[in-house]
Amino acid sequence: MDDNERTERFDHLFAEPVRETLGESTYGEWRSISAPDAAPLGVGFPYPESFPNDDLVDAADAVFDEEGDTALQYGGSDYGDQLVEAIAERARERGIDCDDDQVLLTNGGTNAVDAICRTFLDPGDTLFVEAPTFMGVLKLFGNFGVEVEGFPVDEDGLDVDAVARELEARREDGRELPTVFYTIPTFQNPTGTTLSLDRRERLLDLAAEYDFVVLEDDAYGDLRYEGDDVPTLAELDEDGRVVHVGTFSKTIAPGVRTGWVIAHPEIHAQVRRMNAGGTNTFTRGVLGRYCTDGAFEENLAELREAYAERLDHTLRCLDEHMPPEVEWTEPEGGFFVWVEFPEGADTDELLADAAEEGVVYLPGSMFFPDDSGENGLRLSFSFASLDEIDSGIEALARVASSATAEH
Amino acid sequence: MDDNERTERFDHLFAEPVRETLGESTYGEWRSISAPDAAPLGVGFPYPESFPNDDLVDAADAVFDEEGDTALQYGGSDYGDQLVEAIAERARERGIDCDDDQVLLTNGGTNAVDAICRTFLDPGDTLFVEAPTFMGVLKLFGNFGVEVEGFPVDEDGLDVDAVARELEARREDGRELPTVFYTIPTFQNPTGTTLSLDRRERLLDLAAEYDFVVLEDDAYGDLRYEGDDVPTLAELDEDGRVVHVGTFSKTIAPGVRTGWVIAHPEIHAQVRRMNAGGTNTFTRGVLGRYCTDGAFEENLAELREAYAERLDHTLRCLDEHMPPEVEWTEPEGGFFVWVEFPEGADTDELLADAAEEGVVYLPGSMFFPDDSGENGLRLSFSFASLDEIDSGIEALARVASSATAEH
Repeated sequence: MDDNERTERFDHLFAEPVRETLGESTYGEWRSISAPDAAPLGVGFPYPESFPNDDLVDAADAVFDEEGDTALQYGGSDYGDQLVEAIAERARERGIDCDDDQVLLTNGGTNAVDAICRTFLDPGDTLFVEAPTFMGVLKLFGNFGVEVEGFPVDEDGLDVDAVARELEARREDGRELPTVFYTIPTFQNPTGTTLSLDRRERLLDLAAEYDFVVLEDDAYGDLRYEGDDVPTLAELDEDGRVVHVGTFSKTIAPGVRTGWVIAHPEIHAQVRRMNAGGTNTFTRGVLGRYCTDGAFEENLAELREAYAERLDHTLRCLDEHMPPEVEWTEPEGGFFVWVEFPEGADTDELLADAAEEGVVYLPGSMFFPDDSGENGLRLSFSFASLDEIDSGIEALARVASSATAEH
Repeated sequence: MDDNERTERFDHLFAEPVRETLGESTYGEWRSISAPDAAPLGVGFPYPESFPNDDLVDAADAVFDEEGDTALQYGGSDYGDQLVEAIAERARERGIDCDDDQVLLTNGGTNAVDAICRTFLDPGDTLFVEAPTFMGVLKLFGNFGVEVEGFPVDEDGLDVDAVARELEARREDGRELPTVFYTIPTFQNPTGTTLSLDRRERLLDLAAEYDFVVLEDDAYGDLRYEGDDVPTLAELDEDGRVVHVGTFSKTIAPGVRTGWVIAHPEIHAQVRRMNAGGTNTFTRGVLGRYCTDGAFEENLAELREAYAERLDHTLRCLDEHMPPEVEWTEPEGGFFVWVEFPEGADTDELLADAAEEGVVYLPGSMFFPDDSGENGLRLSFSFASLDEIDSGIEALARVASSATAEH
């Protein structure tokens, strides 16, 4: 509905956080940024051939065969419980010290972040984030009526020194300290950068000193294509204040809408309570079967290979085509490369030209809480074919060249 | 985790509504009320043979075959859109004047109620409900820090005159008026009663006069076994203040965790925004296929027949076995019969005896916002076999007789 058409006749009935944020747009609107003949480097969708369609039908068949009476029931089948155990086991293998019952299944990663926000955030609270950060959570935070402050990201991820300075200044000035730091430390969306080990440790020190919760969004942690793993914040955490979020959206498929929270039992209990209503036991059983018969790890290995090729190809195309004034990140995993045009360029304005030239990206301003970042943009290499990546980056180079010539 | 073990070290970080309700227990705990050798007349589970396991695997197969590239993607397949259209079409056939885009899919009916609560309720607000009402929403409302006031239910459903009197008294005394009235007007959980047409109209008049929202939970509306349909509140609504909730939990299976909200566009927009994170497009596509190829209506007809037999059997067993001091409702649909022992009996205390005798029910106090209703209990005829219903009600009659003898 057009905002102009709103009669506002129900507004007085809405809850205060809703009334205060009526102008906020809805989660997911960026998906409509596309153009029929342009290379789709905007959306962070997995490529369609990556979906384990047949495996999931086989898994559903097996679950119904073996546990037909409970597969669709409240509570679900044993395979559903095995899914929780498999997630906990994988977390432990990655170094996160947790029990099975610290894992809470959610309806996807965003639902997990939402549930954590409900647990910790009151209107007027302060939330720290990386800037740029995932546009989806910025929309979500908009619903909570909180102050969102962003901190710069460089090749080693979040600039933790800048965070330390701001915390100190806020304490000195008696200003509000953050309740939560939302971070995507590994293969960050949208920059693809990974927070270095010493910065991770420093961030956790700050969390303890200034008493805030660290919400670690690990959506891409399984998708490393080169280099060595860096421990998750949850692994490094020594006092239970890291709340870790994972998801199968990138490693199985977005449509299975299955994520999880791993948290200290006392935090887990409240997140669970605030996220009433249960998960989809149908999906849960199917994924439980899929994750315990070896298919998941096999598919993941294939994904890593395919995405490695795409990332490699993307970086090569950027090297080949881009004018020298343009810079970009060089991620070792994930779905995204962050590209920066020279200062003064406006990637919002350039998007129409770019679509015309043959490429769609997401403009940088979407990823900043203050709508800055006009000269940046996110390229996703997860969805387009290698040929489209090629032609898309060539098109982007033409846009960059003419934009640069203008300045 | 035992409440005793809580260190409370994170409590100061929680959001205010969480801190204020830390003692509230978690949604779903009633599922643990069972006894191995007792007839399971407690839980409101559908009976396992009712689940369309094979149909769903077939549907999944078809969806992946025809729309494999989008079935698991963000946004989902065309079948997912067809699910929304099918829900809207069925609503229109039942007399609800709505467009397709007024239907919002949710992760089950409880998630729908939760999203609506987030849209309308601030801590301290007042919520009116039937008493008894669904214990699940009472848990849910507990999370919002609202005042819940219950109104009696008789054979014609909610006592709307009592509501009118309370509203008038509150207005006269300058006390808080309700923001939302949560009601299950048709085959109410737990009483099985249906609100009569004139009471429905009167409730809507009161909603308009006192400016509150009516949350119509229609979880059982499709499950009528005899008598004539009564129009939904959404059909009778003339000024957009009924927010209608439906679910496939009882008509397909709880495990597909798919419900919906039908609301005025301006309310829909805010509920949608507050319920960020999306639905399970895997399930959505499978259900879209299942609901458009005729399988849904066919299965529903079978369900009605099977449940009709169970209800009939339940009422016959009650007639046959119960001592004269015991009363019960005579529903025309749904899953439940409400039984009342004579005043003074305590069904919480009697539950252990009952399990020993061979029956499990849910004690009445679970369904009252003020934990009253001690002499009531909910019998569910949806899950147990006819034999179990028989033996369970015989056992219950023995408990009733000895309880009555004591008073």
